[in-house]
Amino acid sequence: MERFGVHRSVEPVGALPQQAQRVDTDAPLVADEAAIDVEYLNIDAASWTQIRDECAGDADAIRARVLEVVEARGKLHNPVTGSGGMLVGTVAELGAHRREPAVGTRIATLVSLSLTPLVIDEILELDSASERVKVKGRAILFGSGIYAEVPDDLPDEVTLGVLDVAGAPAWAARLVKPRMRVVVIGAGGKSGMLTSAQARRNVGDQGQVVGLCYPESTVAAAQDAGAEAIVVDCTEPIPTSEAVMEAFEGRLADIVFVCTNVPGCEGAAILSCEDDGRIVFFSMATSFTSAALVAEGLGKYPEMTIGNGYLPGHARLALDLVRDEPALLKRFGG
Amino acid sequence: MERFGVHRSVEPVGALPQQAQRVDTDAPLVADEAAIDVEYLNIDAASWTQIRDECAGDADAIRARVLEVVEARGKLHNPVTGSGGMLVGTVAELGAHRREPAVGTRIATLVSLSLTPLVIDEILELDSASERVKVKGRAILFGSGIYAEVPDDLPDEVTLGVLDVAGAPAWAARLVKPRMRVVVIGAGGKSGMLTSAQARRNVGDQGQVVGLCYPESTVAAAQDAGAEAIVVDCTEPIPTSEAVMEAFEGRLADIVFVCTNVPGCEGAAILSCEDDGRIVFFSMATSFTSAALVAEGLGKYPEMTIGNGYLPGHARLALDLVRDEPALLKRFGG
Repeated sequence: MERFGVHRSVEPVGALPQQAQRVDTDAPLVADEAAIDVEYLNIDAASWTQIRDECAGDADAIRARVLEVVEARGKLHNPVTGSGGMLVGTVAELGAHRREPAVGTRIATLVSLSLTPLVIDEILELDSASERVKVKGRAILFGSGIYAEVPDDLPDEVTLGVLDVAGAPAWAARLVKPRMRVVVIGAGGKSGMLTSAQARRNVGDQGQVVGLCYPESTVAAAQDAGAEAIVVDCTEPIPTSEAVMEAFEGRLADIVFVCTNVPGCEGAAILSCEDDGRIVFFSMATSFTSAALVAEGLGKYPEMTIGNGYLPGHARLALDLVRDEPALLKRFGG
Repeated sequence: MERFGVHRSVEPVGALPQQAQRVDTDAPLVADEAAIDVEYLNIDAASWTQIRDECAGDADAIRARVLEVVEARGKLHNPVTGSGGMLVGTVAELGAHRREPAVGTRIATLVSLSLTPLVIDEILELDSASERVKVKGRAILFGSGIYAEVPDDLPDEVTLGVLDVAGAPAWAARLVKPRMRVVVIGAGGKSGMLTSAQARRNVGDQGQVVGLCYPESTVAAAQDAGAEAIVVDCTEPIPTSEAVMEAFEGRLADIVFVCTNVPGCEGAAILSCEDDGRIVFFSMATSFTSAALVAEGLGKYPEMTIGNGYLPGHARLALDLVRDEPALLKRFGG
């Protein structure tokens, strides 16, 4: 269980590090760990908003709060939101049996800061307008911890934005087949754009990718990603499924990706999907029971998948997608 | 959209009935609806446990709470768990264009009580030891609402118990292949037993079905269903995955079915599953975010499926399973 970092959980001992109240940052590296000199933290939106609000936007107070959490827990695991974020830094040291990433490589960790052992020596730069916090510090990546090398041909902002949602296009690449009718809910958001662009590649000329957008201001982004954009509020299942049927000339979707973070979209997704289609939920606002019961209640039996932010190769796939499509790259700030 | 019962949602108007805060029980039947004289409610395990705990096991308090929910919402939709259950009754009236099931047929509804318009005139029998509640009342089945005729060769208790969880063995029948290593979490429960028995049939001689049981008193039931039973608390991911690895001689599961209603089993399910295996969550206590974040945090990418209580043919499949296996039939009260 060393591979998962269980040996570092000190409160309670034996817990998974994500579940631990406190993790140990002092013990020397075990065989498969890597130590990282941290350059900056990219605090996740939920945690950042909570800390900033709690500190009334005061930079010194935010700074003190971040240090306090990391000091107390050995990780930047926001006790209120339960979330973390990610970090960028340079590999400083490898455990005895670890060969990658080479010392000196600049990487972004793709596991949450809520489970990553972290010591902050000093906060170098913190601006209350940005969730990116420049620090001097050291973090530990477990054997199981996923990461990506930070490419030098893209601005960091693009890389971080893409990596944050890289799971969605990777699953689209795996699941979308030629000729499919695809629906992407929230097609104008970051995850929706990448999913639309990847689905567009997979369906071929005889397939269709319909991007559902709300509000209307997100239409242009969905179109830049190659989706046929339709404006509809996906918390309204009935208008949504009617719009989908119109786009597909009376048919429903073979596969639906839920990429918005708006709660209450389960019904729209299910009603827009063929009885025996598939739905992949990437929204963290998805209600498990609602999805299960709505499907059963409608006498539908699509495969409903809990979107996982990881598939092997996902970082490269997502970064290549924006490299290949200038309009998309621009949308991510490149 | 009448087929889905949307016309009965009064709060908010236009919602799917499962998502509605309140549904209308008074309007006359529309063309494809059926009215049912209700005999029994079979409250789903998550909801029943929650209500019973909230009421400290007191039958009068449970009774009052059930009436209160149905009165307020027009359906037995537990506001805490979001779940419902099912009912048995006799068809009393058909809408103008509906031909089945004939008036007088004794049926079990297979759509959740969380979306079924229901009026309870009286609770005739409620025992805090049983989730089966005898009532006098009336319910409405929508055009899309799935149901099963209650067979007369099995005791009601068996039929209700089996139909309540019939989705799980149906999905096992579809997803479990010969030679697979299968784990069933909560194998001694109703859904776990049927899933184990069906998985046992599918894996063949060279496959393995390991049933994780807790507390120890559930071992015998899991064994009756044909599982290799192991006692382990599945809220503890590490001991669980170690037990699974021991049973599979160092390997992990190809597919994991989560059939317990205990919360906090996501980590154990994910750690017990091969990196690219599959997990099917039938537990209504599953946390969507926990499943997604734990998998990503561990660098695992199993397909994680939201268990749907319906697949065409599921009622017959599950009833035939207990008809064929005397030990299982007995466990269901036959």
